[in-house]
Amino acid sequence: MGDIGIWLVGGRGSVATTAMVGAAALGAGAATAQGMVTATPGFPADHLPDVDRFVFGGQDVGELPLVKQAERLAGAGVLPSVLPGVVVDRLIEIEARIHRCAAPGEVPPRTAIEAMVRDLERFRREHALAQLIVINLASTEAPPAWTIPPVDDDALEVALDDWSSCPPSLVATLAALHAGAAYVDFTPGAALTAPAVLARARATGLPVAGRDGKTGETLLKSVLAPMFAHRNLTVRSWSGTNLLGGGDGARLADPEHAASKLASKGRTVANLLGEDVHQTVHIDCVPDLGEWKTAWNHISFAGFLGTAMSLQLTWQGCDSTLAAPLVLDLARLTSLALSRGESGALTPLAYFFKDPVGSDDHAFATQLLALERWAAA
Amino acid sequence: MGDIGIWLVGGRGSVATTAMVGAAALGAGAATAQGMVTATPGFPADHLPDVDRFVFGGQDVGELPLVKQAERLAGAGVLPSVLPGVVVDRLIEIEARIHRCAAPGEVPPRTAIEAMVRDLERFRREHALAQLIVINLASTEAPPAWTIPPVDDDALEVALDDWSSCPPSLVATLAALHAGAAYVDFTPGAALTAPAVLARARATGLPVAGRDGKTGETLLKSVLAPMFAHRNLTVRSWSGTNLLGGGDGARLADPEHAASKLASKGRTVANLLGEDVHQTVHIDCVPDLGEWKTAWNHISFAGFLGTAMSLQLTWQGCDSTLAAPLVLDLARLTSLALSRGESGALTPLAYFFKDPVGSDDHAFATQLLALERWAAA
Amino acid sequence: MGDIGIWLVGGRGSVATTAMVGAAALGAGAATAQGMVTATPGFPADHLPDVDRFVFGGQDVGELPLVKQAERLAGAGVLPSVLPGVVVDRLIEIEARIHRCAAPGEVPPRTAIEAMVRDLERFRREHALAQLIVINLASTEAPPAWTIPPVDDDALEVALDDWSSCPPSLVATLAALHAGAAYVDFTPGAALTAPAVLARARATGLPVAGRDGKTGETLLKSVLAPMFAHRNLTVRSWSGTNLLGGGDGARLADPEHAASKLASKGRTVANLLGEDVHQTVHIDCVPDLGEWKTAWNHISFAGFLGTAMSLQLTWQGCDSTLAAPLVLDLARLTSLALSRGESGALTPLAYFFKDPVGSDDHAFATQLLALERWAAA
Amino acid sequence: MGDIGIWLVGGRGSVATTAMVGAAALGAGAATAQGMVTATPGFPADHLPDVDRFVFGGQDVGELPLVKQAERLAGAGVLPSVLPGVVVDRLIEIEARIHRCAAPGEVPPRTAIEAMVRDLERFRREHALAQLIVINLASTEAPPAWTIPPVDDDALEVALDDWSSCPPSLVATLAALHAGAAYVDFTPGAALTAPAVLARARATGLPVAGRDGKTGETLLKSVLAPMFAHRNLTVRSWSGTNLLGGGDGARLADPEHAASKLASKGRTVANLLGEDVHQTVHIDCVPDLGEWKTAWNHISFAGFLGTAMSLQLTWQGCDSTLAAPLVLDLARLTSLALSRGESGALTPLAYFFKDPVGSDDHAFATQLLALERWAAA
Repeated sequence: MGDIGIWLVGGRGSVATTAMVGAAALGAGAATAQGMVTATPGFPADHLPDVDRFVFGGQDVGELPLVKQAERLAGAGVLPSVLPGVVVDRLIEIEARIHRCAAPGEVPPRTAIEAMVRDLERFRREHALAQLIVINLASTEAPPAWTIPPVDDDALEVALDDWSSCPPSLVATLAALHAGAAYVDFTPGAALTAPAVLARARATGLPVAGRDGKTGETLLKSVLAPMFAHRNLTVRSWSGTNLLGGGDGARLADPEHAASKLASKGRTVANLLGEDVHQTVHIDCVPDLGEWKTAWNHISFAGFLGTAMSLQLTWQGCDSTLAAPLVLDLARLTSLALSRGESGALTPLAYFFKDPVGSDDHAFATQLLALERWAAA
Repeated sequence: MGDIGIWLVGGRGSVATTAMVGAAALGAGAATAQGMVTATPGFPADHLPDVDRFVFGGQDVGELPLVKQAERLAGAGVLPSVLPGVVVDRLIEIEARIHRCAAPGEVPPRTAIEAMVRDLERFRREHALAQLIVINLASTEAPPAWTIPPVDDDALEVALDDWSSCPPSLVATLAALHAGAAYVDFTPGAALTAPAVLARARATGLPVAGRDGKTGETLLKSVLAPMFAHRNLTVRSWSGTNLLGGGDGARLADPEHAASKLASKGRTVANLLGEDVHQTVHIDCVPDLGEWKTAWNHISFAGFLGTAMSLQLTWQGCDSTLAAPLVLDLARLTSLALSRGESGALTPLAYFFKDPVGSDDHAFATQLLALERWAAA
Repeated sequence: MGDIGIWLVGGRGSVATTAMVGAAALGAGAATAQGMVTATPGFPADHLPDVDRFVFGGQDVGELPLVKQAERLAGAGVLPSVLPGVVVDRLIEIEARIHRCAAPGEVPPRTAIEAMVRDLERFRREHALAQLIVINLASTEAPPAWTIPPVDDDALEVALDDWSSCPPSLVATLAALHAGAAYVDFTPGAALTAPAVLARARATGLPVAGRDGKTGETLLKSVLAPMFAHRNLTVRSWSGTNLLGGGDGARLADPEHAASKLASKGRTVANLLGEDVHQTVHIDCVPDLGEWKTAWNHISFAGFLGTAMSLQLTWQGCDSTLAAPLVLDLARLTSLALSRGESGALTPLAYFFKDPVGSDDHAFATQLLALERWAAA
Repeated sequence: MGDIGIWLVGGRGSVATTAMVGAAALGAGAATAQGMVTATPGFPADHLPDVDRFVFGGQDVGELPLVKQAERLAGAGVLPSVLPGVVVDRLIEIEARIHRCAAPGEVPPRTAIEAMVRDLERFRREHALAQLIVINLASTEAPPAWTIPPVDDDALEVALDDWSSCPPSLVATLAALHAGAAYVDFTPGAALTAPAVLARARATGLPVAGRDGKTGETLLKSVLAPMFAHRNLTVRSWSGTNLLGGGDGARLADPEHAASKLASKGRTVANLLGEDVHQTVHIDCVPDLGEWKTAWNHISFAGFLGTAMSLQLTWQGCDSTLAAPLVLDLARLTSLALSRGESGALTPLAYFFKDPVGSDDHAFATQLLALERWAAA
């Protein structure tokens, strides 16, 4: 039962920092597992590795020290103000394991893959890791200039020729698989939409999971849409506006990057209620909201004899707080899959994603059932 | 396969009228089954009786003709304006079968039971009914002056001595069972909380189901509370304000009558999330809302590392529109239970109720699973 | 005291129809002046013409008969269901006075002006009108391809050469002024932004007023923004989403047409609270909302010592119901201006508009004060 | 131009502490006057005393040191986390001037008055104060057992016999006037409703102002109600739910104490829109909200031809942050009134209060106009 390496792409971001601070706080007895799905009664504790066994490393295009980032998050109310001080030693220790990586465009895609493979192999070697898991927590990438996602190795090779057809998530996935690591995409990265990538995961005997962590508005959609469907209430329109501050807000206010997110956000309702529902989703950057997010949804539906009614929601959440415990859950569950020798798309993990790879099920309750059964198997 | 008698207590009210207009419209091909749960794919059509087989009758303390009531509801936007005209012949036919009944206090409880038994027996005889089902759609009753609900026949006899200890729902239940009818309580009537009543249902071989139809705010609670629980997000407070117009609003603005409703409204969250959640629920009469209802909910919860977040909901619905199709569902499903010879509390019907008799499950998804399995058995 | 001609551009639209049905209902004693500003105590009744003196005429690119349109609006809950029947004779009488006009592009701009002048002159002659007022209620037009609005007659002549530089509102304004009519723009039409147009109004001795009737979201902004300013609370962001059904929604979902509306919608907050407020405004077409509109606003502000707070609004209104009484108000007040011989921009009417011509005051209270003083002068 | 004594009743509470920390921060250049009305352009700076001239003293039934209270508020996000450290010397200096006072019931009312008079006189003497102003910031008191408020000195003497007829606000007012101090009631205290108290203020040549600071929900009512009135839109119902955490929430969840607050909360809408508006207001204690408050309002109104529409508001604010700068405003303005020798009810200060003493004007805009005129006179 050696250590488990968790390599975070976007390792200095808000989600990654919150996850690592939280894991350290759990280890130090300074926090509970509140927010972690795998800590609920449906998951047998003895099947899953303790968070203590995780060794964190990673890469980022930025260089803000983890301790500074943790202090910034505490100032913004994301972390309790005392917590960065409590875990400062652990953060300094991790600091040396977060590499500065090249931004897309600085080096050719193949060079970026090679560099990442070297980093992963050294990480595994230096810490004598029993398992290695790469989790993508980078900012939302722009959709690649594909007409169709690469279906075979030849198409994949062509995609690697140029950044316009090689999204950063593809670099991360191929590097992970090459280095013998499992890969989880918590972003709407395009890599896992490519049949060639799923085939390679199966061929290398490694599991992959994704895409786009389901933390707020889409989480609500995945519980409410089935309610309307099972009560036979016809949803006519589902309109949403998301106000985001800070870094992610600025990134997503750029229409090119927002395209990936908006596509995955629309999928849940269309899957659960059909294509006839009139959907609009906006993502706006509102800088003063900082690390917080406000999502408003207006749902218009018809009941018996056609009578029109409506539901409105306002969700006020902190994305890092919502995402970080799920990152730890995904690390634990992917470790379980590695232990069991599973490979290819981990469909039972659909519960965590807006656009689950290998699954057509978007309903919270049935996703949960599938996940719990798989975990307890 | 003879006809099935549906006897509605509160037969001239908004819910009863909407249900009967809707059933007639379905029969005439002037409406779809939108809003009916038993019309969704989870329910095998051949197990359940067609709505066409229902013969409606009932009782009410009021005397407003059904046609007038239907026109009033159309004017209020509850029914399409043309519909009362389409089904006028059916309403006139039913009119003769809705009896004026004594209000509580006008005659002693035992006299009220005897009168109702006579009405039910005549109804069965005159229409050669194969099955008989009583559904309570009366206004919310005040809680009875019980310290504990009657546990045996002796206690039941004592309760029948006086209206203060004999809620109207008890009259309806005992009359139904005496007349060989199944009994469904769509209101928060106290009768089905009495062990003596459930015992009598078993003894007479008749099924009963209830209490308090889950149509709006509590429906949302039963899907959202499990989401918080399974995501390990700690709900700290759940605050609700319900603005109701019209008749039901006035009845529920009376604190004595509201007590029953408030108790059943609080139960779902306490059951699903524990007693520690700080709950407040208000029911206000706002006459200008007419047949419409607006419910606002504020849910405060904590995530990973204790960070506080919130969700707000505004539900704008029409209670009659939401309730009426469920009344038809309950009639169909109770008919199935009668066909199968089931007796006592129909626990698989928990899905429909705020405070399900004989069940501790308040979660939408697991209730649905239990219901679909039972229906398909 | 002869009759007053009210010529409605977009005379078969929802707003125009509601205004004419309402005026007829007022005349018949079948409605009150609820919703009309000029019926409040601040306005001396003897200064203003009765609505009875109005003779309605107009033009439209569509041909749906007024009676049909009124019935459609009654079916959608905009008008009481009995009202179209009550005023049917008046609508049939007006019907003959609503001309089919060419859509932009069908004929050159100068030809369109000449045709409209002929229509107006005949309208005046046939009804021996003492005054003539043109009110633009057409759909929102696309912004013209101006770099700057025409500043003199030469620039105006150039603009008239081509529809790309001649917005429909310019045709209406120039025709009105040529025919000796006052002109009111209830839409965000570009004509009144042109100095050359205001100069011509002064030269011809005729008053003009506009632009873009302030009926819902912007009305709220014009009362709430001054509250924040006078309480010295710093608004950081004001985010809005408008869900519109029906015709106007489809028109405004087209980005080209929405541009005019979004620009005038943003002006109120920038004017009252400064350019630093981060603003976003969306207009979405949600067909199932029909004639109704839902606007959500999220306002983030800082108080003493920088503490962040927020206000959210949800406005659910019917634009035709909100706009129509203001159209009658504007007709009465413009008639007053004509009686007083006023010409050029009617700045005291800023109270009615999102982007008031000739005024920099966007605050509800001071606009009202200016209007009441002017009306009472 | 000597110093001005500001004596705070409830001097260790959240509002008082925030006001004193803020005044110290302003003096130290560590904060701006954001949130202070008297810092807006409508108020000539040279008419009003600088906050620097204020010497704070006061009384409280509690004994939590100011520095601790400030740290608690910083932890709750009410104050910037660094601020208590910045002003710690000033807080320690004030600490010695906040007396422990008897709670109602511990000593007879007349004894309480005498003790407070002695404290005030010593405060004035020791600091050679040029002016003295008492501001009541205590928790909401229960309504006194009056049938009518005391109309003359004899009635006042009777009221002083017993705490049931002598509300704490009466003790504070009479002590202030006896000691030659102006009196401002920021709570819904009953004292200023007594004609005998206003007469005594006039007789002693001292100004008084109140009651119940208008900081959130009622502030919104005072800008929105006039909008509906002036647009001739008929408000049918105005329903509100206020969720309060912390100390004030617990106090106001007690129906006896809430009575005062609910009465003053209802007055604004009734005054501005008439008694026909159906109003409900709830105040709920939701402990996890801490120092924060969430108010939801639902306003139903009718427009032209009777069409029903609605507006909903959600206000999320921090009462101490909203109230504290107004406390400093009131101190400055009352000082101005003392300088001018004004006595009795200070009606131009109606702008600040839910239930203004001596004024029937509840509309934000006209209140502001009256205040600015008076201040600039």
